[in-house]
Amino acid sequence: MSFNHRLYAFLNDEILPQESAYLHVSDLAILRGYGIFDFFKTQEGEPLFLDDYLNRFYGSALIMGLKVPLPEEELKQTIEKLIQMNGLSDSGVKMVLTGGYSENGYDLGEPNLIILQQPLSMPSEAQLATGLKVITHEYVRDLAAAKTINYSMGIKLLQQVKARGSDDVLYHQKGVVSEFPRSNFFLVKQDETVVTPAQEILKGVTRKNVLELAGKKYSVQEGTVTLEDIAQAKEAFMTSTTKRVLPIVQIDGQPIGDGKPGSVTLELLEDLIALENRHLQK
Amino acid sequence: MSFNHRLYAFLNDEILPQESAYLHVSDLAILRGYGIFDFFKTQEGEPLFLDDYLNRFYGSALIMGLKVPLPEEELKQTIEKLIQMNGLSDSGVKMVLTGGYSENGYDLGEPNLIILQQPLSMPSEAQLATGLKVITHEYVRDLAAAKTINYSMGIKLLQQVKARGSDDVLYHQKGVVSEFPRSNFFLVKQDETVVTPAQEILKGVTRKNVLELAGKKYSVQEGTVTLEDIAQAKEAFMTSTTKRVLPIVQIDGQPIGDGKPGSVTLELLEDLIALENRHLQK
Repeated sequence: MSFNHRLYAFLNDEILPQESAYLHVSDLAILRGYGIFDFFKTQEGEPLFLDDYLNRFYGSALIMGLKVPLPEEELKQTIEKLIQMNGLSDSGVKMVLTGGYSENGYDLGEPNLIILQQPLSMPSEAQLATGLKVITHEYVRDLAAAKTINYSMGIKLLQQVKARGSDDVLYHQKGVVSEFPRSNFFLVKQDETVVTPAQEILKGVTRKNVLELAGKKYSVQEGTVTLEDIAQAKEAFMTSTTKRVLPIVQIDGQPIGDGKPGSVTLELLEDLIALENRHLQK
Repeated sequence: MSFNHRLYAFLNDEILPQESAYLHVSDLAILRGYGIFDFFKTQEGEPLFLDDYLNRFYGSALIMGLKVPLPEEELKQTIEKLIQMNGLSDSGVKMVLTGGYSENGYDLGEPNLIILQQPLSMPSEAQLATGLKVITHEYVRDLAAAKTINYSMGIKLLQQVKARGSDDVLYHQKGVVSEFPRSNFFLVKQDETVVTPAQEILKGVTRKNVLELAGKKYSVQEGTVTLEDIAQAKEAFMTSTTKRVLPIVQIDGQPIGDGKPGSVTLELLEDLIALENRHLQK
């Protein structure tokens, strides 16, 4: 990895140079892919919607039977200190909680907690102007309500995504759409109703914010979304912490709506940026 | 972990004390649960059925788009050297290949290769005499043909397995049985036909050996096995490298057959032990 300057990380009970943050190979993340994580961003050095991300982090830990070694207030202070030391204005902060060092390579140990901060790259103007092309794949994430570290399928599919000249892959099961590996999915119907899947998904913080914003101007539905619904849609977009609201203009080679980023999509992006700015000014 | 004596491990290009084998937190196993592994045993210092395990290891790597950094002959020599240095008679050897250090936390890096050796504990006489009680859970492993490190579900279910006074959990989908988290499943019909699931499983080396041995004495089927088939069965057992052939006497609180380890099961165990001994004498 290349850095403009030396970054620090947090590991269990100390802040240390990021290049010195190592785990022993007996950790269950390494041996058994067992762990959870979460990821938020900072703007102008301030975490955005931090409480939402921390709630989800502790919630994922609970689902997976892992105990976060720090109570929430202490974790917040640690994050603040790390952000201060790293001095990055716009960044992504990742918290990872692993299954810990296992006695027998299967039973849980004491979880290892890692916090990493990186400079953040948001979508480019070109991506926003063009919109994304996506393909579909039949798959449902295990334990979808928890943000586990299991991205076997998403990463394995990267090659296929690239080979088909697309930008991402949308999961569905028998035509019922759930989510992208790292983003939520939305569509806008011809009557401008904004719809997003409700089941078998990770509940994104950006998804929640966009649902709230959309509710002020449009009809909003959380419910079943099918591939057929997408074929009939006016617009589609994805949401995530790093992508905000990113238009999707093509799915499996077929244009969505008129094949261009839609007006509702771009309005919701503007509203989200405004919400982020209000959040920072608090 | 507690050791009788100091053990060595292999990491990428060197043999080093096991307690010094660390990976940087940017490895995709830690960040994204991305990796594959395999596991074989040694008896009297000799690997058993090593070629089968190495074939599967390279096969899993291929499925997951990872390149094993050593060709097979070199990997064998490394394993031999490690076994010699550790001087354990009966042991388990685990090879792990991770997604490697990732530039952006998602794209694959150069895989990290780890080899660990541990003393091995085989099933006790008591376990063999009593047999195991198992529960069932509706689940199919992702990418079941590859031995990935993803054990999120199996480890999460440990608590439930224990709470219900059972020893393991058998996966099924809509009543069609696949496998245990770390073992294959077999049943013996009333007519002594030996049956094992063919789909959505990891093809165990012990499973293969037991199928061959069973074929010499009984009718053998690889095919669909349902929970209803288990209710009608004479016997059931699981197979794995460490468990060999282990009788299952109860499923979801219901006895299988007469609720005791069956004669076909115990005969296949004897045959397997004899096969292992023949393999060692070669």
